Formats: sequence, C-alpha cells, structure tokens
Amino acid sequence: MSVSTVSRVLNNRPDVSDTVRRRVLSVVENEGYIPNNSARDLVRAQSDSIGVVVRGMGNLFFSDLLKTISREIDRGGYNMVLRFIDSDADEVKTGAILEREKKLRGLLFLGGRYDYTPSELSLIGVPYVCCSYANSFGSLREDEYSSVTIDDHAAAYRAVEKLIRLGHRRIAILLPSCNDRSVSELRYNGYRAALRDYGLEFDSLLMAETGGCFEMPESYAGMCVIIDRGVDFSAVFTLSDTMAIAAMKALEDRGRHVPDDCSVIAIDGLAVSEYVTPTLTTLIQPAEEMGRESVRILLDILDGHGQNRHLRLKASVREGGSVRQI
Amino acid sequence: MSVSTVSRVLNNRPDVSDTVRRRVLSVVENEGYIPNNSARDLVRAQSDSIGVVVRGMGNLFFSDLLKTISREIDRGGYNMVLRFIDSDADEVKTGAILEREKKLRGLLFLGGRYDYTPSELSLIGVPYVCCSYANSFGSLREDEYSSVTIDDHAAAYRAVEKLIRLGHRRIAILLPSCNDRSVSELRYNGYRAALRDYGLEFDSLLMAETGGCFEMPESYAGMCVIIDRGVDFSAVFTLSDTMAIAAMKALEDRGRHVPDDCSVIAIDGLAVSEYVTPTLTTLIQPAEEMGRESVRILLDILDGHGQNRHLRLKASVREGGSVRQI
Repeated sequence: MSVSTVSRVLNNRPDVSDTVRRRVLSVVENEGYIPNNSARDLVRAQSDSIGVVVRGMGNLFFSDLLKTISREIDRGGYNMVLRFIDSDADEVKTGAILEREKKLRGLLFLGGRYDYTPSELSLIGVPYVCCSYANSFGSLREDEYSSVTIDDHAAAYRAVEKLIRLGHRRIAILLPSCNDRSVSELRYNGYRAALRDYGLEFDSLLMAETGGCFEMPESYAGMCVIIDRGVDFSAVFTLSDTMAIAAMKALEDRGRHVPDDCSVIAIDGLAVSEYVTPTLTTLIQPAEEMGRESVRILLDILDGHGQNRHLRLKASVREGGSVRQI
Repeated sequence: MSVSTVSRVLNNRPDVSDTVRRRVLSVVENEGYIPNNSARDLVRAQSDSIGVVVRGMGNLFFSDLLKTISREIDRGGYNMVLRFIDSDADEVKTGAILEREKKLRGLLFLGGRYDYTPSELSLIGVPYVCCSYANSFGSLREDEYSSVTIDDHAAAYRAVEKLIRLGHRRIAILLPSCNDRSVSELRYNGYRAALRDYGLEFDSLLMAETGGCFEMPESYAGMCVIIDRGVDFSAVFTLSDTMAIAAMKALEDRGRHVPDDCSVIAIDGLAVSEYVTPTLTTLIQPAEEMGRESVRILLDILDGHGQNRHLRLKASVREGGSVRQI
C-alpha cells in the first residue's frame, strides 16, 4: 500500500474506498504504524540539521572553510544552520542554544577556545567537531570530541626555522597574545622553540600583541609599535595572512621595503595574500581538506559508522616574495 | 488528553491503559486527528526558513554581506538556509529547488542574472530580494520582486570621472565582460558615458575582459594582456576590489609602479584593499546597509506589512593612495 493512500486515509480524504480505509486503520490500530512513521518523519525533518558556529566574523580563512563545509553538509543530505559570532563570544553557549532551538544532530565549531573542561562542554548534547583548533590546553577526553587542525606549534616552528636558515637572527613576532591558551600560545611556543633550538635569544622588544585580535587595524598598529621601538630586526613572523598583510603595510608606510629591508612570513595561505606585492610567503592550512574532513568525521558519527577522531593535517610552504636571504 | 499520551499510544508503548488506547485510536479513526496535526507541525517547523543563495564562491564582498544577512535573519526569528553556487550557476533553479525542499518562506539572492523574464521567475513561488543587483536588463515588473543595490552605472561613472578630473586621458578598463547583461555591462556603460561626457575617445585596446570572471588569476592575466599590447595608458578602472588587487600586482610585476606609473581605482570597499600597498582608492558599496535592508524588505513582506521595493544605496569614495594627479 502506498504512502499516499495511507496519507489519504488518515487525512479523511474522500477518494479512498471503504475497504482500503478499514485496512489502513486496522494497521494503525494494531501496529501504531502511521503515527510512528509520521513521528519519525517529524524527528528527521527537524533533526537533519547541523549547526555551524563561526567565531570571528572577519576571518577570511573561515570564509574559505565555510564554503567547503556548506557544500559537504549539503551533499551529505543535511541542513546547515549557521551562526556568526564575535571572536570573543562564547561558541559553546551559542552552540548549546542552537542545539536546543534547532534540534541539531551535530555541531561544527569554526574557531573556539582551546581550554574546554568536560563540565563546560556538557552543555553540548550532540557530537561536535572543532574545526581548525583542538582542545590543546583543556581537559576533555580525546574520545569526547573531534578535531581537525594543523599542528600549530610545528607550523610556527617551520616558518621561523625557514627565516633562521636564510640568515635571520633578529625575528620579530606579531600575535594576538602569547599567553591566552589559544592558537596564539601554540604558535608563539613554536616561535620560541625554533629560536631556542637554533641558539637565538628571545627579545621581548621584538614582540607585539594585538589584544587577542587578528584584525588588520590592530595588526597594523602592533607592527608600528615594534618599528617605533627602534630595535633592530630583519624579519617578522605573523600568526595569520591578514596580520601579515597589515604588517607589510605598516612596514612600507614606515619606509621599510619588504623583503629588502624586512622579510615577512605567516600562516594561512589565503588567495588574496598571493596577490599582494610582494606575494606573501606563508604556510598553507589546507582549508578545503580541513572543511571536508570535519564534515566527514561528523557525518560518520551521525550515520553510526564512526567515532570521535582527531585529524592533524600538514601545512605546506607557499613560496612568495616576502622573504629573502640575508 | 496530552500529546505525549497520544504519542505513547501510537508508538505502541506499554505504559498506557487499554481504555485510553482505545479512545485515542477511535479519535484517529474518526478524525484522522494525529497525522493531521503532525503534518501541521511539520509544515510549521519547516516554514520559518529563508533561503540565501550566494552566487560566486570567491566573492569577498558577498562574504561581508553574508555576515550581516545571517545576523538579521536570525534576529528576525527565521532560519537561514544557505547555498553557495558557482558564479555561472543558475541561482533561480537553485532557489526554486531549495524553496520546495526546505519549504522556504522567502529567498535572498546574493548575485544573479540581470535579465530575468517573468516566466523564468515563475519557478519561484515565494517573495525574493535581489541583493547587490537588480533586473536592469530583464522584463520583470517592479512590483514582482525586490532589490537592494547601488547605482552601478553611476558608481562607475564617478570612478572614471575622478580619474579624468585628475588629468588622466588614457584610462584602461578591466572587467569580466562588456556585453553580458550584468553588472559588468552596467559599469562598462558608466565608464563609456564618463569618457563620452568629457570628450575622450574609447579605445578597445585599453580594455580586457576576463571571461565573465571576477577572480584574481583571470584579472591578473587580463591586466597583463593590456600591458603587453604596448598601448599608452595612465590609469586603470577595475570592476571590483579583488580585480584591482590583482591588477596592481600585474602592474608591479611588469615594472609599473602604482600610482607613479599608473593609477588604479575600483568599486567595492573591502577591508583588505585598505591594507594593500598603496591603499586602494575605491567606491564603497555599503555592505552592512545593503544586507540589513535586504532582510528588512523581505521580513516586512513576510510579516504582511510591506510590499516589493527597490532600494538604491549610495556608493561613497574611499580615498586611498592608488590614484594620483598627472
């Protein structure tokens, strides 16, 4: 018997014979068949949604990620429910509210805190994937959540090591914070480790923090602070491509030509940083793969043939013109 | 009788007395009550959704718009259903499918064709707003749809006029197409009108088309084509900021310094183009206002206290360092 026949019966439509009507209703009575099915449909209709919380509105790397994530969620047959929040907003609370409001089946966080505790995350009742970050400073058990990210410490180490091997000894660093239990701290530690391994001293005068912020105006100001200290440096490592673009601008505006007077290296690999002059040398985060794998992990869990996993992807160097041998 | 009691009966759960069970099933039999109600819930659950179709994945201006639109839809109490499509894909078809699949109540198109006919748009059965474009070359009646956009012809005119007033006579143009019934054609016409009004001759050797594409690689290549023709020019007008960033890169790579050897002006006003060197001089499209007004028009219609409207917002000049007097 077709679904539409059953539907016609249960909606009391006239175009069904009495015999068919009786048969349908007898099944309903004996099996609870139809409402069961409707209820299932209802549950499915509301619960095929995946929440995506994007923390940091101006983050161009997240814009790239989002396109892949949107496409993959769609291909998987799910709805995407999207929220943009400020870079200092509470993604867990946003996710938890969204989960209840939209009856989500899973969550993807694009950006978030690195120091969750299990009790904080108990607000979230569905599987979730931290995309582009992990709980490096927190106390979550590995099997309680999923993450897809590069090894931030290693990427920063490689960027700084590249500068050192080209002869740079005085390497400035521009970062949101050196001690905020986030990607900043991980990459800052990578910077410090590279200096240490190559026997170079750390000089706090070569560092500027942008107050937790990756935005271009704050990065521009941070670079100016270092320049205006009058300390000697031949290279700058910044935590992101947009920070590097702003830093290059500050250097040029202060009469320091990149790369002749100062080399600049970053981490991200945005399309636009390929078209600034000089082309930014940077470590590429594989945005496409990162988005695809994040959705895959989540869908595998939702479809019952996967469990929480932690994927570390490899960052690769994009050679530009912003770095030179000295 | 509570919904949960009814649900327990219809799911054949044991914790219901036979009397209650019989009463529930008799109602089902007589009224078709439950499925009817479920169906109503189902419809309601799905119909507070607004579809947003973003045409052109790499468009940074749309990334800005999207953040505002997402926030405003959320504030209005609706769900956003988002689709990214390629810049040559069919947004009407995508919107029509989405409308049916997700039982949308309205649609916002970020980017689309400028030459819709009423029969093409009859696929769309809900109110829709064209955000950042209008049906300039089509045959829709004004009361059949809404749009929020700048006056593209006027913005291009002003950009080119600005160059002319600074002494430029040989002004190149880099655009996706000059004859594609889209924003390209509108802005191209603005360029031609400004030349004409100031008595300057149009020279097709000063024009390069990027094959319908706003992307940076194609824009870079287009700029190189003009340079390699060996024709004289002192300024370039590009249709978007990212095209201008790529054009500036091509000029620098070919040994032409901006603005000393060539001025560059565009339309968009992206944050990132403020941090390239030199800062791009451009006409700002008010992304925040454009997104906010698009959602407002749609929600007014959905809430029954508004009708289709067409809003023309003003583009304003952002003075940069990419243009100079000659």
